[in-house]
Amino acid sequence: MYTVGVRDHFMIAHSLSGEVFGPAQRLHGATFVVDVEFRRAELDTAGIVLDIGLASQAVHEVLAGLNYRNLDNESELAGRNSTTEVLARFIFDRLAAKIRAGQLGSGALGLQSLCVTLNESHVPWASFDAALESTR
Amino acid sequence: MYTVGVRDHFMIAHSLSGEVFGPAQRLHGATFVVDVEFRRAELDTAGIVLDIGLASQAVHEVLAGLNYRNLDNESELAGRNSTTEVLARFIFDRLAAKIRAGQLGSGALGLQSLCVTLNESHVPWASFDAALESTR
Amino acid sequence: MYTVGVRDHFMIAHSLSGEVFGPAQRLHGATFVVDVEFRRAELDTAGIVLDIGLASQAVHEVLAGLNYRNLDNESELAGRNSTTEVLARFIFDRLAAKIRAGQLGSGALGLQSLCVTLNESHVPWASFDAALESTR
Amino acid sequence: MYTVGVRDHFMIAHSLSGEVFGPAQRLHGATFVVDVEFRRAELDTAGIVLDIGLASQAVHEVLAGLNYRNLDNESELAGRNSTTEVLARFIFDRLAAKIRAGQLGSGALGLQSLCVTLNESHVPWASFDAALESTR
Amino acid sequence: MYTVGVRDHFMIAHSLSGEVFGPAQRLHGATFVVDVEFRRAELDTAGIVLDIGLASQAVHEVLAGLNYRNLDNESELAGRNSTTEVLARFIFDRLAAKIRAGQLGSGALGLQSLCVTLNESHVPWASFDAALESTR
Amino acid sequence: MYTVGVRDHFMIAHSLSGEVFGPAQRLHGATFVVDVEFRRAELDTAGIVLDIGLASQAVHEVLAGLNYRNLDNESELAGRNSTTEVLARFIFDRLAAKIRAGQLGSGALGLQSLCVTLNESHVPWASFDAALESTR
Repeated sequence: MYTVGVRDHFMIAHSLSGEVFGPAQRLHGATFVVDVEFRRAELDTAGIVLDIGLASQAVHEVLAGLNYRNLDNESELAGRNSTTEVLARFIFDRLAAKIRAGQLGSGALGLQSLCVTLNESHVPWASFDAALESTR
Repeated sequence: MYTVGVRDHFMIAHSLSGEVFGPAQRLHGATFVVDVEFRRAELDTAGIVLDIGLASQAVHEVLAGLNYRNLDNESELAGRNSTTEVLARFIFDRLAAKIRAGQLGSGALGLQSLCVTLNESHVPWASFDAALESTR
Repeated sequence: MYTVGVRDHFMIAHSLSGEVFGPAQRLHGATFVVDVEFRRAELDTAGIVLDIGLASQAVHEVLAGLNYRNLDNESELAGRNSTTEVLARFIFDRLAAKIRAGQLGSGALGLQSLCVTLNESHVPWASFDAALESTR
Repeated sequence: MYTVGVRDHFMIAHSLSGEVFGPAQRLHGATFVVDVEFRRAELDTAGIVLDIGLASQAVHEVLAGLNYRNLDNESELAGRNSTTEVLARFIFDRLAAKIRAGQLGSGALGLQSLCVTLNESHVPWASFDAALESTR
Repeated sequence: MYTVGVRDHFMIAHSLSGEVFGPAQRLHGATFVVDVEFRRAELDTAGIVLDIGLASQAVHEVLAGLNYRNLDNESELAGRNSTTEVLARFIFDRLAAKIRAGQLGSGALGLQSLCVTLNESHVPWASFDAALESTR
Repeated sequence: MYTVGVRDHFMIAHSLSGEVFGPAQRLHGATFVVDVEFRRAELDTAGIVLDIGLASQAVHEVLAGLNYRNLDNESELAGRNSTTEVLARFIFDRLAAKIRAGQLGSGALGLQSLCVTLNESHVPWASFDAALESTR
């Protein structure tokens, strides 16, 4: 299996509902350094997994929809806790939709799986990793 | 699959038996920066893999049992080489027991797999990764 | 010159006033991974710059006063933009006060300078570095 | 599954053919920081995945065949784009051959899979990961 | 002293003249991950060292003049070895000129010093650090 | 000022004397990832601070004298606590002696200062930084 990964980041405010979150129930915020991995069994004729320029742009666009916002007010996340895990899945779904829509190029249609990891600081992180077909 | 990871560390003295270890047969030591990944197919109702506070505490307790010790004298490791691989498995088994005992919360009973990675320096590392059921 | 450094982090929400901040004028947030360096010309009789346990605890206490908060509502920062630079200085001043109050041990009274660095993501960072006497 | 990883690097010049590469069609270069992971289900009697000394040496030898070269002139890569993905596979194949030839020790004959990751900068990376039997 | 730092990178081919460079006398290449630090004694009224948006853009423009090139053919470096040290100074001088020309904003005219660090891999790096007045 | 830095590491056992060290009074160990910075005002005619090959070798030789040892038994450190700070100074002094002896090449005789940093884990570190003349 071949993997190509790119790194980007976004910065948000949010609060989390539930006693399990302790002081994170208060309005606070986070920088998420995001690693996205694109995977495919075979390379295309150019010798690549996908066009990394298009991939980086797609990741940047998805993160731009979250960046510099208070996620408590974002309608797309309404009724959900914007935990690191939920955000990893949210970004995965947005990227999977862009891949299916051909925005990462025709080569990206051959991708088999995707992994989105959000690093919250030098200590914890969370990711969502799935086959692309399973999410269609 | 969702993953949550946490980082901690411990510092030990030890020696390794066998010609393959060369100068590491002498009494020396290491800092191990430990990354533990907890994995689960679905999130709980709070939108998390598990209570990261309980998870971090459990990792810290397991490492505290090794930290600032000479592993050559630890009865739990008697008769075994405390290689990075063996220590990764040792920590995995201790964490799996705590998960089964409910110390990481009832949500953690739904975990499917665990990966324990020990980073020895900026160059080498070792890990043990397994399904939790396979180790019960 | 001897230096001892420790790393910790905190997570906050805030907004920044001024056109120069662009989209960061909106309420958003950040994780700041904080590196604090303590410097001294000579070591004490134990062979250390200062008691790293007390130093780590003091850093943690200062960050706890900011952690999981919306800095727009913190009276201590009222009327000031909580930029990365301003926060580095704020933490420096709090630590300098603790050093003078003897909370980092008597050895820490011999410290000559302090540097507080806040890493905002994998890309930008800011720090404040000064002699301790100059801030008394 | 047990994993042992080692890190090394090499520095090359090359150019890439195809409009998808934009300015990377020009002769330029890269440092690749290489992470190689060796995986095995059970440890040997010494408690290790393989002899890490032999493993590090084998990785270094494979990279030495590429290091400080213009890959456009290397006959082994003739007719192929030396993309990060292609280089990850190239290094994988060279290492797999050394494993089969016994150069990483008899213990390494029990390895089940190998992953070669090339980090191109602080932003992108690529890897090739496969079972060893599947490449024989 | 306040510091603001930003990270970017560029990828080049080059060769180095002189026996001291051993195999690096051959045409090869490098990724340089570049950290630029801007320093100033006092913050401006917005609470910043300088406009980090303008600073990042200026760094990116300077690196774009080197990126994806064979430095052996660049007239600006003609007759000089493009060592990591020389490149750090080259980038410093280009940035200092942009600062003096006001391209980083009027606030940047108050900068006192600049440090440009080039990380060549996970092992070596080089930097040039100087007061801005000393280079005018 | 120009700086060139190199990274290496060593692994030791030791114990520390004094209540301030708490559980680190027991025999334990550490990996120290070592960053050495060599500084000089002007480059030599080859455009370098010093021969990085000789510098890396000198660092490696100094660390080899400590690597895979129990520092409690090393006569060179007898009567001293082998704290991270003391080890940074010890390595500084050994390197300064090698520089003066010409082992890093004649160019290294022009070095003005040296900084030795020991990273103990992902959290703490210590360094010793001094002008070379001041230690002669």
